Amino acid sequence: MPNAPFLPKDEHFVERIRASFERQQFMETIGAKLIRIEPGFCEIHVPYDSRLTQQHGFFHAGVVGTVADNAAGYAAFSLMAATSSILTVEFKLNLISPADGNLLIGRSTVLKNGKTLTICRSDVFIVKAGSSGEGEKLCAASQSTLIELGEKADR
Amino acid sequence: MPNAPFLPKDEHFVERIRASFERQQFMETIGAKLIRIEPGFCEIHVPYDSRLTQQHGFFHAGVVGTVADNAAGYAAFSLMAATSSILTVEFKLNLISPADGNLLIGRSTVLKNGKTLTICRSDVFIVKAGSSGEGEKLCAASQSTLIELGEKADR
Amino acid sequence: MPNAPFLPKDEHFVERIRASFERQQFMETIGAKLIRIEPGFCEIHVPYDSRLTQQHGFFHAGVVGTVADNAAGYAAFSLMAATSSILTVEFKLNLISPADGNLLIGRSTVLKNGKTLTICRSDVFIVKAGSSGEGEKLCAASQSTLIELGEKADR
Amino acid sequence: MPNAPFLPKDEHFVERIRASFERQQFMETIGAKLIRIEPGFCEIHVPYDSRLTQQHGFFHAGVVGTVADNAAGYAAFSLMAATSSILTVEFKLNLISPADGNLLIGRSTVLKNGKTLTICRSDVFIVKAGSSGEGEKLCAASQSTLIELGEKADR
Repeated sequence: MPNAPFLPKDEHFVERIRASFERQQFMETIGAKLIRIEPGFCEIHVPYDSRLTQQHGFFHAGVVGTVADNAAGYAAFSLMAATSSILTVEFKLNLISPADGNLLIGRSTVLKNGKTLTICRSDVFIVKAGSSGEGEKLCAASQSTLIELGEKADR
Repeated sequence: MPNAPFLPKDEHFVERIRASFERQQFMETIGAKLIRIEPGFCEIHVPYDSRLTQQHGFFHAGVVGTVADNAAGYAAFSLMAATSSILTVEFKLNLISPADGNLLIGRSTVLKNGKTLTICRSDVFIVKAGSSGEGEKLCAASQSTLIELGEKADR
Repeated sequence: MPNAPFLPKDEHFVERIRASFERQQFMETIGAKLIRIEPGFCEIHVPYDSRLTQQHGFFHAGVVGTVADNAAGYAAFSLMAATSSILTVEFKLNLISPADGNLLIGRSTVLKNGKTLTICRSDVFIVKAGSSGEGEKLCAASQSTLIELGEKADR
Repeated sequence: MPNAPFLPKDEHFVERIRASFERQQFMETIGAKLIRIEPGFCEIHVPYDSRLTQQHGFFHAGVVGTVADNAAGYAAFSLMAATSSILTVEFKLNLISPADGNLLIGRSTVLKNGKTLTICRSDVFIVKAGSSGEGEKLCAASQSTLIELGEKADR
């Protein structure tokens, strides 16, 4: 959907994002892994763990929302200056199918990278291993607004 | 904002909700406590734990969203039949102030309890113990849509 | 919900907002009236007109959304500097009951007035004249994010 | 994004949608045209008219939201039974760039067509005629939830 590929302002954006991700202890708590980071794109995985479930044994909506929000945050952060930090302004999440599976995959893409605000769309997929070749199933869709805070490096 | 107090269809709604909350293992993982449940209202607390933090040491937005979503879910569920279960259709969350404190408090109120869909508004507050008497500070505001699934009791 | 009353930075905020409202030709097209403006609050009315309807003869969701968005915009704008202009970043609207009536009323309140961003909640009510004294009925609920653009006065 | 093409339940969905669109007087008021309707997809155009503007002479956010919402509604309605009617449950709209141009284009695609609820994503583009070949520019992005009301044909 973006008209043009994004050019990162900070050539070390991958290292910067990996370091920020590592400082988020909640990512470790839920077992999240930063799988891929590109200019304007991020992918995060969370393997199934019964500690992450809701009353029916599926991934809790809070985990699904966390994955969507964090993928959006780092997709946006990939385009920001080395001296900036980032905050989520807001996000909206539709839960589309039960997150019933072994692996949760969040992918987010920047729609618009403005001077102050960045808008992202995220999709969350569920994979059920051993299922009859279905592969990834869309379980949630999200739209987010993020703000760049200049001269406040993330650490 | 509701024009009239809500009348629960199931007189055992408190027990039903407590049992559902206990089955959500993710609530135990984040240390969430179901503090208060009334017809069309729910309050959930999460004490600070470094395992729940983002890169600046505050509560992660994913935890804030989880608390808002779950409070909305149980506020809505309090008005549903004993034979129904509930799903979040979608929610939208504005992060208003950094969740920098010792206790996160989510409160949700039903705006409209329809035959199929229920709409809730939730506020999330942060409390900083030892701070100069400021008390609760609004850190997030949310609006949610939930759906009642008839003849599918929660367990 | 706000902890404290809001103090406007521009003592002429009422005149400034009335002038901005008058410049919005779309307000005239839908017959909208700016009824009340206070620091952090705005109320807009739209009387019924068949030109504003959807397929069942009720107010179109687009009109409901316009009223919610515009009330939020001016509630936020009431707190901004005389030299600033304002843009809606995003809004989310739940349509709660059919907008079946003679008068649409939008009311918006600022939840948080930050340095750059302002968050508002809006309610839209429908009034059915001649109905058995029911008065206002909540037909939509909204949550919005607005941005202050400094040194770009609205005109 | 959808994994599979959508199959309409009603082979006369195009005529059914054109008739519903014609009954929405608000579409005539804003000069909206139903350009394209396919299973799970809808495109609506609104040519510039000064009666549709905000204070800077651009398309009003309310018009942008109307186009996004209506495109989503008809994209979803294309997949519903001939005996059903449709309501918007909620939508969320990000305003990404000023709607400064001669033609507003809304396109919506169904993400998930469930038994009761349908989820759509919509993009709104602005075209500035005479501009140096830029073509369409994304000015808003939306995500919507719609509900199918069975046994209540649209007319």
